[in-house]
Amino acid sequence: MRAEIIAVGTELLLGQIVNTNAQYLSRQLASMGIDVYYQTVVGDNMDRLQEALRLSSSRADIVLLSGGLGPTQDDLTKDALASFLGRSIHIDRIAMDRIERFFMDRGVVMTENNRRQALAVEGGTPLPNETGLAVGNAITHEDTHYIVLPGPPKELIPMFEQEAKPWLLQHVLTHELPIYSKMLKFAGIGESALDERLEDLITAQTDPTIALYAKDGEVTVRISTKAAGEAEAMARLEELEERIRERGPEFMYASEDVPIEKVIVDFMADRGWTLSAAESCTGGLVAESLTSIPGSASMFLGGIICYTNQIKEKLVHIPHGLLEGEDVPGAVSGEVAEALAENVRMVMDSDFGISVTGVAGPGYAERKPVGLVYIGLAQRGKATEVHELHLQGNRETIRLRAAKALLYRLWQRLMSSKEEEQ
Amino acid sequence: MRAEIIAVGTELLLGQIVNTNAQYLSRQLASMGIDVYYQTVVGDNMDRLQEALRLSSSRADIVLLSGGLGPTQDDLTKDALASFLGRSIHIDRIAMDRIERFFMDRGVVMTENNRRQALAVEGGTPLPNETGLAVGNAITHEDTHYIVLPGPPKELIPMFEQEAKPWLLQHVLTHELPIYSKMLKFAGIGESALDERLEDLITAQTDPTIALYAKDGEVTVRISTKAAGEAEAMARLEELEERIRERGPEFMYASEDVPIEKVIVDFMADRGWTLSAAESCTGGLVAESLTSIPGSASMFLGGIICYTNQIKEKLVHIPHGLLEGEDVPGAVSGEVAEALAENVRMVMDSDFGISVTGVAGPGYAERKPVGLVYIGLAQRGKATEVHELHLQGNRETIRLRAAKALLYRLWQRLMSSKEEEQ
Repeated sequence: MRAEIIAVGTELLLGQIVNTNAQYLSRQLASMGIDVYYQTVVGDNMDRLQEALRLSSSRADIVLLSGGLGPTQDDLTKDALASFLGRSIHIDRIAMDRIERFFMDRGVVMTENNRRQALAVEGGTPLPNETGLAVGNAITHEDTHYIVLPGPPKELIPMFEQEAKPWLLQHVLTHELPIYSKMLKFAGIGESALDERLEDLITAQTDPTIALYAKDGEVTVRISTKAAGEAEAMARLEELEERIRERGPEFMYASEDVPIEKVIVDFMADRGWTLSAAESCTGGLVAESLTSIPGSASMFLGGIICYTNQIKEKLVHIPHGLLEGEDVPGAVSGEVAEALAENVRMVMDSDFGISVTGVAGPGYAERKPVGLVYIGLAQRGKATEVHELHLQGNRETIRLRAAKALLYRLWQRLMSSKEEEQ
Repeated sequence: MRAEIIAVGTELLLGQIVNTNAQYLSRQLASMGIDVYYQTVVGDNMDRLQEALRLSSSRADIVLLSGGLGPTQDDLTKDALASFLGRSIHIDRIAMDRIERFFMDRGVVMTENNRRQALAVEGGTPLPNETGLAVGNAITHEDTHYIVLPGPPKELIPMFEQEAKPWLLQHVLTHELPIYSKMLKFAGIGESALDERLEDLITAQTDPTIALYAKDGEVTVRISTKAAGEAEAMARLEELEERIRERGPEFMYASEDVPIEKVIVDFMADRGWTLSAAESCTGGLVAESLTSIPGSASMFLGGIICYTNQIKEKLVHIPHGLLEGEDVPGAVSGEVAEALAENVRMVMDSDFGISVTGVAGPGYAERKPVGLVYIGLAQRGKATEVHELHLQGNRETIRLRAAKALLYRLWQRLMSSKEEEQ
């Protein structure tokens, strides 16, 4: 099976946005055992879109299109596909009902152009859009399979996972040996350091295959194998998983594709343990990551973003003498990280308290270098731990890495508490 | 002038990396007034690479290739180009000297395959690589111009700026007019509603051109024109900007490409005005957005993430009677949003206080529907405003839209304060 990906949108050709959809879809297709031979980007132009369709159809079994499903006049993808296939196009009733309801719920008059988002190519399967209004399409025409997906990743990803992937498995990949994958997730270690630890395995290994990639301060190791049945595949994958885990057990926090904050939320919620956070340089990022996870309401009590020294004093009761004056540790110090973690835990009356204070830059603070960050971790009845970090990168990267480092240390502490339980 | 970009690399087709080079090069070419009609990604495969070259050459005046210049056997870009053009390939002496010196300086024996990085197509101009070893190439062949660049962005970007761009300006773009653009940013209005307000302008307008796109709860309108000089271009763009602004002055928050939080931070910091936030369902997202902006430390005093009723009572002093009992408004209510905004402002002693409380889902809270959100906005000496929102989407989308809606209302309040100043 060969696939091609066509991303539609003049904003891509102008370089206003980066084509993350092509990466996402390529990775998904690879995990399904489908080879991608070309990715193409074409603008919102009827002739060139049809030219791209003609070319991809001549080379591939599966053509994935993303973008150009919106309400505006330059959203042409479905019209171009219908015209290229010589099929008609119609309003999908279910999608149209959803759009009408959307506007009715808001008490807003629906503008006429929104009807375009309900268009479907004749003879295809409409793919519902859980997170937006534009309906997707799946069509088989002369042995080529077309999947039409919306451009915004927030809509494309759920639609691919919930609609397009099952459709492909059911209608297209019926004779392929299915591919089984496991995602092993690592934190607290960089991609190249992990690659080095796994180098001999990666080199020696042909089945299952091993692939590494890094994102947002976490490293994912994907191991994949083709097999006739799940039991056979899982046996092979689990055997390799154990060999990989041995190379860095202190860094591997999950054997499924979840962020570390989800592991933390689930683990603490299961035990009825509670958490609070005091953040300075991350400005809410730690709390935001944790509360992005459904179920966090039962373990995360709250946070204090103490951006100024006054708020550190008033709300987190940091002694003035630590913060201001000559020869004091200052807000960016281990002492303050420690007091923030302990005091926020007491203020919120939670089982654990975490803190972060540092210099995210640009520009120095307290004559301390950009990238210097302290994190604190307090636990009821236990000694508080503090770590000093020296992070590289711009403001955004430093904040992200500081938040991830704190979550990693919290996860480690939870794991050792778990061992003590047993 | 029409250009195409061909990125070479199987790692792109596997989705292991995202094609940021295509974005970078597209943006550069757009700024030089060169239209990009297609971006293509092809793997490290001789036949398919030549097929991509054949196709691009038939459509474009300029073909930019990135990647596949490394030392290994699957780095084929220059071989493929030479073979496609029917030209020979040779070792560029200057590049080879540089590579030999690199290994000598490190006291490492150079492996033979490194010689491949000095390859140059006959009759072309070698493009020196300041930050790596692989030399680039620029070749004109039968009126088509080929630029060969390395794959790693830290090599590609300097080589484009210092070598390829000057070569294009000198050899190819001698008669072209440069393109000038402005970005107009909107919040508080959806893409389709704005598109409809601008429909007649978009339809009538050919120069400057108008393009809309939406991301993260904001809409960007890009207007562009080709002109001999900046003054002429700016006069045209500003005239159109005014006509666009008239269609929704209450929504247009900037005439440059910045998020609304940056406008808020700069505006408040300039005036010495301060802000604090109390967040429930957004869990720190509002504070995180604001503090992602450099300079926010001078206007954002802090935030309280009050995820539980206990914390709302203890830290933000919300009366128990509003939160719990029979027939009370409950945590998700206009009354609580109002009290949160007013009380966080008083606790932090800031000029403005903002709040958000709602049901982000999944699952109901207090028997209220997912997507019901209240935002509050308090200002020293002014009446507090509260807005009820009914948001669609999953947990992530609802949180994002709630945060953006709150920032939009804050911006509006700041604008009306500015008018009162005058």
